[in-house]
Amino acid sequence: MNNIRMPKEGEPSHSKATIMGSNGVVQALLTDLYQITMAYAYWKSEKMDDLSVFDLYFRKNPFQGEFTIFAGLEECVKLMQSFHFSESDIEYLKTALPPKTDPAFYDYLGSLSAKDITLSAVPEGEVVFPKVPLITITGPLAVVQLLETPLLNLVNYASLVATNAARFRMAAGPETTLLEFGLRRAQGPDGGLSASRYCYLGGFDGTSNVLAGKMFGIPVRGTHAHAFVTSFINLDDVKTRTLRSRDDSREIDFVDCCLKYQKELPAVLDFLPDQVMEGELAAFISYAMAFPEGFLALIDTYDVIRSGLPNFCTVAMALNDLGYQSIGIRLDSGDLSYLSNEVQAKFIRVADRYNLPWFKKLTIVASNDINEDTIHSLNQQGHSINCYGIGTHLVTCQKQPALGCVFKLVQINNKPRIKLSEDVEKVTIPGLKKVYRLFGTDGRALVDLLQHASETAPKTGQRVLCRHPIQESKRAYVIPASVKCLHEIWWDKGKVVNELPSLTELREKTKESLKTIRQDHKRALNPTPYKVSVTSDLYTFIHELWLESAPIGELS
Amino acid sequence: MNNIRMPKEGEPSHSKATIMGSNGVVQALLTDLYQITMAYAYWKSEKMDDLSVFDLYFRKNPFQGEFTIFAGLEECVKLMQSFHFSESDIEYLKTALPPKTDPAFYDYLGSLSAKDITLSAVPEGEVVFPKVPLITITGPLAVVQLLETPLLNLVNYASLVATNAARFRMAAGPETTLLEFGLRRAQGPDGGLSASRYCYLGGFDGTSNVLAGKMFGIPVRGTHAHAFVTSFINLDDVKTRTLRSRDDSREIDFVDCCLKYQKELPAVLDFLPDQVMEGELAAFISYAMAFPEGFLALIDTYDVIRSGLPNFCTVAMALNDLGYQSIGIRLDSGDLSYLSNEVQAKFIRVADRYNLPWFKKLTIVASNDINEDTIHSLNQQGHSINCYGIGTHLVTCQKQPALGCVFKLVQINNKPRIKLSEDVEKVTIPGLKKVYRLFGTDGRALVDLLQHASETAPKTGQRVLCRHPIQESKRAYVIPASVKCLHEIWWDKGKVVNELPSLTELREKTKESLKTIRQDHKRALNPTPYKVSVTSDLYTFIHELWLESAPIGELS
Repeated sequence: MNNIRMPKEGEPSHSKATIMGSNGVVQALLTDLYQITMAYAYWKSEKMDDLSVFDLYFRKNPFQGEFTIFAGLEECVKLMQSFHFSESDIEYLKTALPPKTDPAFYDYLGSLSAKDITLSAVPEGEVVFPKVPLITITGPLAVVQLLETPLLNLVNYASLVATNAARFRMAAGPETTLLEFGLRRAQGPDGGLSASRYCYLGGFDGTSNVLAGKMFGIPVRGTHAHAFVTSFINLDDVKTRTLRSRDDSREIDFVDCCLKYQKELPAVLDFLPDQVMEGELAAFISYAMAFPEGFLALIDTYDVIRSGLPNFCTVAMALNDLGYQSIGIRLDSGDLSYLSNEVQAKFIRVADRYNLPWFKKLTIVASNDINEDTIHSLNQQGHSINCYGIGTHLVTCQKQPALGCVFKLVQINNKPRIKLSEDVEKVTIPGLKKVYRLFGTDGRALVDLLQHASETAPKTGQRVLCRHPIQESKRAYVIPASVKCLHEIWWDKGKVVNELPSLTELREKTKESLKTIRQDHKRALNPTPYKVSVTSDLYTFIHELWLESAPIGELS
Repeated sequence: MNNIRMPKEGEPSHSKATIMGSNGVVQALLTDLYQITMAYAYWKSEKMDDLSVFDLYFRKNPFQGEFTIFAGLEECVKLMQSFHFSESDIEYLKTALPPKTDPAFYDYLGSLSAKDITLSAVPEGEVVFPKVPLITITGPLAVVQLLETPLLNLVNYASLVATNAARFRMAAGPETTLLEFGLRRAQGPDGGLSASRYCYLGGFDGTSNVLAGKMFGIPVRGTHAHAFVTSFINLDDVKTRTLRSRDDSREIDFVDCCLKYQKELPAVLDFLPDQVMEGELAAFISYAMAFPEGFLALIDTYDVIRSGLPNFCTVAMALNDLGYQSIGIRLDSGDLSYLSNEVQAKFIRVADRYNLPWFKKLTIVASNDINEDTIHSLNQQGHSINCYGIGTHLVTCQKQPALGCVFKLVQINNKPRIKLSEDVEKVTIPGLKKVYRLFGTDGRALVDLLQHASETAPKTGQRVLCRHPIQESKRAYVIPASVKCLHEIWWDKGKVVNELPSLTELREKTKESLKTIRQDHKRALNPTPYKVSVTSDLYTFIHELWLESAPIGELS
C-alpha cells in the first residue's frame, strides 16, 4: 500500500496525457452529424460567421445532491488547440453528406480552426450549481456549433464522476484512504482513464489503473486477487524459503518462521490450525517475500476468521521478526462492519500479546461493491475500515449515470436569444453574462449572481438585490463580505491565455472550493438548495424578452 | 435522414479502428496495479510460467433480463497482438513499485508477450448466459493475470451496451429505425466510440457520432438542433431565396413559394398564421435549401402544433412544388404519444388535400430522454413514431450501468481449482471445459451444457443428462435435434487463427443468434431463465472438489 508516487509538474509522463487528449481521440470529427449538417445550412445561408454566444450549463445537480464539481476544462481547452478537420475527415464527410452538397463547403470546413473562439469558464475543480454557465463560448456560429458535442462529452462525465468522488470522500471522512478500482467496469479503455483522472480530482487518494498513474501522475495502489491465493495449493509451491532481514544483517528460513507462529498464534487468536488453508498461507508467504515492506493480504478467499486472518497474522509476525512492519488486510466480501471489527479486535490482541502497538493500526481495506450509501450505513453500524477500494459504483455513477449538461445559444450578432419551454426550468437565461459568487463574513458562499456582462460588479459591503430568474416573489438583498468573479478566459485569439493547473493542484482546488460551501448544501440527506440568482436588470430583461416571444392565442 | 453509408469491407477507414484499438489506448499498462504486483510475486516464487486456465464469465444477466449479447471479442484479440510493456512503461513501473524490487523482474516484464496464450471464446454477437465461459484464456500464470483487467474492461461495457441496444430493438420492433445519439453523455471520447460501435452491433441502425461513422463504417444520421432554429430571427435571415427544382429544369423564389403555402395551409391544418414563429420558418427554409432531398425538421422549439408543424408542412409543400419529397419531423419534448398522433393526423390531412400519398408516410422521429420503458409505454398508449433517437439511457445503461464479468482461475498445472464462497452462486466451475448449445427440432436453443474438455460431445438425437451445477434435484434428460460447440479458438501460438467478422457481420450474427432464443427468455417482463447445465461427470467432479476444500469445523 506504500506504492505512492506523487505527480510532478512538467514531467514527460504528464504531457503524454495531453497528447492523447488533444491529438488522439478528441478530434473535430468526434461530433454529432447534425453539427455538420447545421454548419452546411449556416454556410449556405451565409450565417456561418454570425457572432454567437453559447452557454454550457446543467439544470439539476446529480445524485439528488445540491452541488457539482466542475471538471474537464483542461481537455476542452486542448480541444481548442487541436480543432480542425483533416483531409481524411473531409474525404469521409463527402461520403456521409448528400452527393449534391456544394463542394466549396468542404474547402470551408477544411479551413476551420478555433482561432476566432473565446472560451471563458469557471476554473476546473470549482463547486458549481445549476443554471450557472460553466463555459461560455463566443465565436462564429458554425464553429461554435461544431464544438458543442465534444465540449459536452468532455464536461459531462468528468464533472459527474468528480462529483461522485467528492461525495464518496465526504461520506468516508477526510482521514479514510479512498482508492479507485473501476477500470474493469468503465466504458472501455478511455472511459477507465477518464474515471481515474477525475476521481482523483474529486478527492480520491489513488487508483489501481497503472496507465492512469503513468499518464496523469496519480498514485497507483494494489495488492493481489483471489486468483493469487487459489493458484497456490500448498507450501510446496513456495520455491524460495529464505528471506533477509530489513537491516540486511541476517537471512532466515521464512517458511519455518511462519510455521513457528502458526503454532503459537492459536492461543492468541482462537483458531483451529486444521481449519487454516495451507494454499492461502503459501500465497501469503510468497507475497510477503516479494513485498516484505508492503505486505497487505486479501484474507477472504476461504474464511476470514478461520483461515485468512490467522494466516495474515502468522506471516505478519514472521515479517516482524525480520524488522518489517506489515501494512494490513483487505476484505472483499461478507459483512464488512462485523468482519472489520472482528479483525481489528484480533489485531489488538496480537498487539497486546507481543507488545507491538503498530499492530493496532494496521490498515483494513474494504472493497466489495461499495457505494455511497454503503459507507453511510457502515458509519451508522460502526466499523474499523480505514481504506476503501471502490470500483463499479464510483465509475459508472450508478445513482445517476449521466449529468445533463446542455449547450444553449444565448446571443447572436449582439441580439440576446431566449429558448422558451413549457417547463419554466428549461427557459434559458439570455445574453452574454457575468457570474459572481458572493461570500459572507465567515468565508462561506451565500449566492451566485448572474448579470449582464455590461453591469458593474457587485461590491464588497454594498447590498445587492438577488432575484430568482423566473419567480417574481423570490428575492433578497445580500451584503457580500467578499465577491469573486467566477469566470476566467482560458482561450482567446487562437491561444491558451491562462495557466492550466496540474491535476494535483486541481484536486487541492476542489477541496478548498468545497470548504467554502455550507454543510447543509453538501449533506447526503435532504440538502438545502444553493441559490443562483440574477440581478434586477437581468430579471427585467429576461421577462421582457419572454413577453416578446409569447405566442398570440389562448393560455396554455 | 438519408445520409446513410453502409460499411464496406477492408476499406481504410475501418482499419483505423484497429490501429486505435490495438496500438492506441489499449496497451499492457492499462491494467490494475495488483496484476503487476502479483506478477512480481509469481516471478519471485517461480510460479510465473505455471500453466493456468482462466474463465471470463458473468453471474447474472443485466437489466433484469435473461439474456446477454457477447461483444468486445475483436478488441480482446487485438489486445493479444499488441500486448507488451514498452521501455517507457518499464521506466514508469520502476517508480511505482517498491525500490527493493529485483531489477531482473523488469527485464522479465519487458520480455513478455501473448505468444504463449491461447484464447478461445464464444463468437462475438452470440447470445450468452450466466456461468458460461465467454472467453477461456490458457497460458503462463503471470501473463494471463496481467491480461485480466484489460479483457474485463473490453468485454464488460461492450456486452452491456450491445445487450441494452438489443433490448431497445426488441421493444421498438424490427421496422422502427433506431439511432444512437449518446456521444455527449458517454464516459469521455472513447466511451462514446465504444457506445456507437456496440449499439450498432446490438441492432441499432445508425449513430450521430461522425467519428464512429468514419472509424467503423456505421451509418451516420442527424438533422439540426434547437439552436439552429433560435439562431434565425426572421425571414431577413434567409440570404439566398432561390432554389432549383429536383430535375434542374427551373429555379423559383423559394421563400415566396413557402409564403404562398403559409396562406393556404391554415384551412387544411387549423392553425393561426400569427401564432407561427417567423424565425422558425426562416430556419426551416434555410435547412430545406441546404438539404432539399433530405428535409427533416425539429418542430418543437416553440410550439409543435401551432408553429413547428405548420412551418414544416409549409416548407415541405414548397419543396414538393420543386419535385422534392421531404423526410419528416423530429419531436424532442412533450407528450410523444399525443404529439406523434396529432402530427400523423395532420400529415394525412395534407396528403388527402393535395393527393400526395407519401405525405402519410413521413418519418416521425422521437428523441426526448427515451429509455426501454418509455418505448413499452408508448406502445401501450399508441403512437405514430417510426424512428427513435436515443442517447443518455442507451449509452449509460441507466437501468444497470455495469455488467459484472469476472475472470476466475479454474485450473493450474493441470490441477482444477475451485473458488468457494458462502454464496453458492459464486462457486466457480473448475477445470478446462467445453460448452455446447443444444437445440430443439424448431431450431430454438434448449440448454447450454458445460462439460470436461475431455468428455465426448453430446450427439444429435441422443439423450444427455443436463444437471444444475449446484442443486442436486435440478436435472433433466435432453434429446438435442442439433448441437453446436460454442467456443472457437481465436488466438494461438502468437497468431490470430480465426477470421474476425466485420461489424456489419457481427450485427447480422446478433440478430440471427437472438432468433434462436425462445421469446419467453427475451421478453421484458418476468422472462424465463434459460438453463445452463453441466454433465453428470462435471457435476460429480465439482462436488468432489468442493468436499475436498470444505473446512473442518462446525457448519456455518
